[in-house]
Amino acid sequence: MTRPVTAISDPDDDRIAPFKAIRERDLVGRSGRFIAEGTVVLRVLAEAHAEEERFVADRILVLENRLKGVADILDRFPQDVPVYSCTSAVLNAIAGFDMHRGVLALGRIAHAPDFSALIADLPGNALVVVCVGLSNHDNAGSVFRNATIFGADAVLLDRTSCDPLYRKAIRVSVGSVLKMPWHRGGEASELLFTLRDAGFDVITLSPSGKTPLNALKPAQRRTALVLGTEGEGLPEDILSAFQPVRIPQSGKLDSLNVATAAGIALFQIATASGRIV
Amino acid sequence: MTRPVTAISDPDDDRIAPFKAIRERDLVGRSGRFIAEGTVVLRVLAEAHAEEERFVADRILVLENRLKGVADILDRFPQDVPVYSCTSAVLNAIAGFDMHRGVLALGRIAHAPDFSALIADLPGNALVVVCVGLSNHDNAGSVFRNATIFGADAVLLDRTSCDPLYRKAIRVSVGSVLKMPWHRGGEASELLFTLRDAGFDVITLSPSGKTPLNALKPAQRRTALVLGTEGEGLPEDILSAFQPVRIPQSGKLDSLNVATAAGIALFQIATASGRIV
Repeated sequence: MTRPVTAISDPDDDRIAPFKAIRERDLVGRSGRFIAEGTVVLRVLAEAHAEEERFVADRILVLENRLKGVADILDRFPQDVPVYSCTSAVLNAIAGFDMHRGVLALGRIAHAPDFSALIADLPGNALVVVCVGLSNHDNAGSVFRNATIFGADAVLLDRTSCDPLYRKAIRVSVGSVLKMPWHRGGEASELLFTLRDAGFDVITLSPSGKTPLNALKPAQRRTALVLGTEGEGLPEDILSAFQPVRIPQSGKLDSLNVATAAGIALFQIATASGRIV
Repeated sequence: MTRPVTAISDPDDDRIAPFKAIRERDLVGRSGRFIAEGTVVLRVLAEAHAEEERFVADRILVLENRLKGVADILDRFPQDVPVYSCTSAVLNAIAGFDMHRGVLALGRIAHAPDFSALIADLPGNALVVVCVGLSNHDNAGSVFRNATIFGADAVLLDRTSCDPLYRKAIRVSVGSVLKMPWHRGGEASELLFTLRDAGFDVITLSPSGKTPLNALKPAQRRTALVLGTEGEGLPEDILSAFQPVRIPQSGKLDSLNVATAAGIALFQIATASGRIV
């Protein structure tokens, strides 16, 4: 490794204060900052930082016995991003639980995304995923992962959906929250009418939908796939305004997990249209 | 509620000892017993107990303020299944963490499944899921959930796969581990050759597969879908012996989560064959 690393021995050292009580801070939010955890996510953050388009690293903390293993990733960050190391005793003392991964970065939003610009930048055959009231961070991460795997161009979340910059959402997304263009905010119906005006076929996913997913005609233009809240699903006004599609099911259980449903629908849309082969 | 409930005030009371240190016991196993957690899973256990085919309840522990809400489920268990109640202070003291759900049952395997009988009982158009080295309990639970939703007839797990009777796997499966016919044990290749001999088209799922899932011809007879270990996937000898199929992907991330991949493949197989409409 070609960069300096500062060893920290005092859990109360101010330089590593942002990593303190990670779980509790996750809950209250970090106002424009986030925790990237694990080597895979750190690698994605390094790529994002190099582009400086949206996310950058503020500082990095690595267990001393993990330093060698992530040296190539650390070398990809500019020299002005401080890298600290500590023992597992110090890390467990500050993080508040056993941090087996031992690779943490504090990230920062460098440029807040502009909704209109994001929509304007989408390609003519765009595929976007819209989350309405998605409340579980694991599901949010999985939706991003599946959206990335099936080549979606963006993820939009209404204002009632959870923040995908939550530590666990980023981790479950395998870092794709830091790569995929996305925007969170606004009323669901407002988002969907904007998409319709921008040339999107808006498809809502619901067990009550009339059209089975496998009978869905490939879109002639742009496609928006809309997912509802865990359990409750999408509200009636949205289902009546936009084509509801159902995933055929045996009826032996209530319904699919929302992120799995998203994966299945994205697979079907992406393969039926030839977007993914 | 028409049944007696015994209030327990001492965390060290022997009658609730099996619920002590739940997480630690999860790791060492319970030799023929398991923990059913939450109202949905308790309801499934009540159904299983009524049939007495495979699983029965040994005892039940419910937070006193949750008793009324689950009264109808408790009434479905025979009177000789003891029901205990306690305060959240007692429950947290014995379970070792905040048990917000407050609904627990100790279950017992009444009849161990016989592999040959299970195979012999499968219908002529059977769809089964086979897990090889599946190691994560969340994924095991999700595989069972998806298998149930797409009408699979059984789940088979090789001896290196994790135990689906682990508390979290049962919960994530929404109780379907207690409903779906399944068997765990044996070498993977042994399982697959047995299935082939029993008239199954054996389909292995792998990102390296030549055939895209959406080009897969509907099976003329029985179908076995084979899933590999998280990360590593299926071993080479299995992929070379049985048709490997891939789910088309963008290549922007390593691969799908194994349970999501199972959901997508089951959706495709079940809809293409008209098994689910």
